[in-house]
Amino acid sequence: MNVRPIRVTVWNEYVCERTYEEVRAVYPEGIHAALAQVIRDQLGANAAVRTATLDQPEHGLPEEVLEATDVLIWWAHAAHDRIADAIADRVQQRVLRGMGLIALHSAPGAKVLQRLLGTTCAVRWREDGERELVWTVNPSPPIAAGLPHPLIIPKQEMYGEFFDIPEPEELVFISSYTGGEVFRSDCCFTRGRGRIFYFSPGHESYPVYYQPEIQRVLANATHWAANGGAVRRTLYMPENSAMGWFEP
Amino acid sequence: MNVRPIRVTVWNEYVCERTYEEVRAVYPEGIHAALAQVIRDQLGANAAVRTATLDQPEHGLPEEVLEATDVLIWWAHAAHDRIADAIADRVQQRVLRGMGLIALHSAPGAKVLQRLLGTTCAVRWREDGERELVWTVNPSPPIAAGLPHPLIIPKQEMYGEFFDIPEPEELVFISSYTGGEVFRSDCCFTRGRGRIFYFSPGHESYPVYYQPEIQRVLANATHWAANGGAVRRTLYMPENSAMGWFEP
Amino acid sequence: MNVRPIRVTVWNEYVCERTYEEVRAVYPEGIHAALAQVIRDQLGANAAVRTATLDQPEHGLPEEVLEATDVLIWWAHAAHDRIADAIADRVQQRVLRGMGLIALHSAPGAKVLQRLLGTTCAVRWREDGERELVWTVNPSPPIAAGLPHPLIIPKQEMYGEFFDIPEPEELVFISSYTGGEVFRSDCCFTRGRGRIFYFSPGHESYPVYYQPEIQRVLANATHWAANGGAVRRTLYMPENSAMGWFEP
Amino acid sequence: MNVRPIRVTVWNEYVCERTYEEVRAVYPEGIHAALAQVIRDQLGANAAVRTATLDQPEHGLPEEVLEATDVLIWWAHAAHDRIADAIADRVQQRVLRGMGLIALHSAPGAKVLQRLLGTTCAVRWREDGERELVWTVNPSPPIAAGLPHPLIIPKQEMYGEFFDIPEPEELVFISSYTGGEVFRSDCCFTRGRGRIFYFSPGHESYPVYYQPEIQRVLANATHWAANGGAVRRTLYMPENSAMGWFEP
Repeated sequence: MNVRPIRVTVWNEYVCERTYEEVRAVYPEGIHAALAQVIRDQLGANAAVRTATLDQPEHGLPEEVLEATDVLIWWAHAAHDRIADAIADRVQQRVLRGMGLIALHSAPGAKVLQRLLGTTCAVRWREDGERELVWTVNPSPPIAAGLPHPLIIPKQEMYGEFFDIPEPEELVFISSYTGGEVFRSDCCFTRGRGRIFYFSPGHESYPVYYQPEIQRVLANATHWAANGGAVRRTLYMPENSAMGWFEP
Repeated sequence: MNVRPIRVTVWNEYVCERTYEEVRAVYPEGIHAALAQVIRDQLGANAAVRTATLDQPEHGLPEEVLEATDVLIWWAHAAHDRIADAIADRVQQRVLRGMGLIALHSAPGAKVLQRLLGTTCAVRWREDGERELVWTVNPSPPIAAGLPHPLIIPKQEMYGEFFDIPEPEELVFISSYTGGEVFRSDCCFTRGRGRIFYFSPGHESYPVYYQPEIQRVLANATHWAANGGAVRRTLYMPENSAMGWFEP
Repeated sequence: MNVRPIRVTVWNEYVCERTYEEVRAVYPEGIHAALAQVIRDQLGANAAVRTATLDQPEHGLPEEVLEATDVLIWWAHAAHDRIADAIADRVQQRVLRGMGLIALHSAPGAKVLQRLLGTTCAVRWREDGERELVWTVNPSPPIAAGLPHPLIIPKQEMYGEFFDIPEPEELVFISSYTGGEVFRSDCCFTRGRGRIFYFSPGHESYPVYYQPEIQRVLANATHWAANGGAVRRTLYMPENSAMGWFEP
Repeated sequence: MNVRPIRVTVWNEYVCERTYEEVRAVYPEGIHAALAQVIRDQLGANAAVRTATLDQPEHGLPEEVLEATDVLIWWAHAAHDRIADAIADRVQQRVLRGMGLIALHSAPGAKVLQRLLGTTCAVRWREDGERELVWTVNPSPPIAAGLPHPLIIPKQEMYGEFFDIPEPEELVFISSYTGGEVFRSDCCFTRGRGRIFYFSPGHESYPVYYQPEIQRVLANATHWAANGGAVRRTLYMPENSAMGWFEP
């Protein structure tokens, strides 16, 4: 279906890996490097991957990079407030014009996701190294393809309900944790011409992104969010339409 | 809103209570009697409650009873196969004409629910007296009103995903169990003019229906399923409509 | 159900009525005055209604007014850009904390709606005095209660698809127009603790809000958006929760 | 993605074409032959197409045919009552085990669709050769790919709301007609492991299936309903699961 590779940009705030030794021990080159490698390994010639980080000019997301991005993967945790409003607006607009967005883990705190969804995205949370079981409650969509039921993550930060998001268009996974909480651990949304996939597993101190099952979800999600290979698309605009404008 | 009481019929197969002493110990008059008392206590003068059981003529559900029922509460577990097809069809038709249906616990095995939903309604299950935590993932609908988060059920049968139902129109509760499984423990559906509420908590050997929080859910669901007080309503029928039939 | 009246604030930019004689001829006291009268007539003692307009200090929406508002009705058309960002943010936050919002007609251009929904809300449009037929495609929700099928509006501005909004949680009405276009003419959303009802009928030059059927929709929507009578509610916030925090 | 061609069976009651000359004039070999040709033309080597009709033994749908079918296209209009219950049950079960179903035009009267959806599927209708405009209200899914907006059908039977179906999981098209009625002209459902696509355009007396845009919808829908190429799949079954059954 895709005549050219899916152009993926992995964005990472890249803060914790440079601050904490135990994070660096898990992701020595940064989470963005690990995620980029996942997409390269999983999609091979079907993806062209680059990375971008917070401390680059324009956070590594100038117009020309976003224009050349079909799917943006977003990882942030500690520095949500350091994102410039203009860059958050730019990413929102680009999603509305057709770029896919895969928002990972702590993304509920990100301006980008909050602007696209309109809510606080608040979650309940706890860092206690609990086991997370990810159950598939909708096996039909491509995002669920090839996954064990349940998918077991040995150690994870707990994210629990209530999760203050709009009702997702499609709910594929529900997680439970050692402590008994549950979480809608993935959520699919369409906004404008763009598709948004939120996926909660993946923490800076646990090697979650090295699990093959998690890598499969990321690959499935990249295909889904690319939605057939994005040509450059325009923003929807109000349009004054004369009577019978559609007549042949 | 309701000019007259909601007419509630509680239906129970009434088998286990007469077979097993430990069930009788929990529900000495039958689960239907206990459920009827719950609705009477919770809704008071706003409800008129009767009961019906499997071994009555026409399973206690002759036409005139169903016609005079605004909300039917269904409890069955061991004798799904003993329901006559004609009665299952009749209940389905009555729901399509506007009767609410509250399908409890083992109802996924019931012909009535399977006909209305079209799927197997298969569930994963285990009887091990586990604790169930019922989490509210959608606090807005009236069904969620007045409930603790989580609602704790000390001992329950486990019902786990995948639950083979159509995607619910509204998902209010998700449960987790000691064993780690999760379940969409309530599901709201509209079929024809009728509203259907499935709610999994409630087992014949555990005193779940005596918990005040569970009673609150049943009361909320009765109001929701009654949908403003059912007048007698007709089935939707194909309708040949002349051009301009709606002109004043 | 409501122990006290629903506190309704009708907000209007109040521009066209003071600019164009033909608008003033339809709504001599302003659209806000007409809408306020509708709610008073329809809800009687069950509503306490006030109005606010763009040119008042803080656009008539200081904190204390919004705090004392259960349902905000929003009418704007020509002056969306004149709303201060701080006021738009304030309204968004108040909706997330539980205030209902009824967004009428040209509201897709309003910052308030765009922030809550995250999309452009772009529509196709044409001012040609066409007849609009409003068809009920979901008769079950209270919003559809008591309406003719179709509801006929003799003259209206055309709003046509594609309408760039998130998929609505509930779609009750679909409109067609003389020119052949269709429109999802109402859309129900929940955002945070608040409920949002968008309803397209209602133009400054046509006497749409004087139609009894339209007034019925506004009454139904006010009850729905009030959602049981709003107590003052807090914003959802991220919450660090110790293992077992919910144990009795 | 598909390692082998999608196996498509086109089923037609094949009654009107043999009864009425004006129908035969449009579809001289039967609607099934025309539809089969559409799929062959559109999918080429990616589809293996066969046909089946009502008057064949077991209506042309013995177990081995259904087992070897990934997508079943269903056309029926005048002879819904002549389908044997056992065959309707068999088709339902096969859909629940993963076969896609594309239900065309008059399929709301078909036992197969009614069993899978649980409702009457009643529609308003009129045969008056009106123009139908098919508007895309959700441009994101693959089913909408490559279509004009609106898609214009010069002459069609009118199908109007209210359409008594469960709320569709995804609504892509809404039609309007010369007479002013509207219709949710496609509806996507998942039931068990199977996907169901209902599409109203297509009448025995009008050459709708010869329109390239309609053929594109049928091709898109075949890919969607095949859902990745169906391996033989099992029915979901209740499953007693020991504590920790999923432990490695």
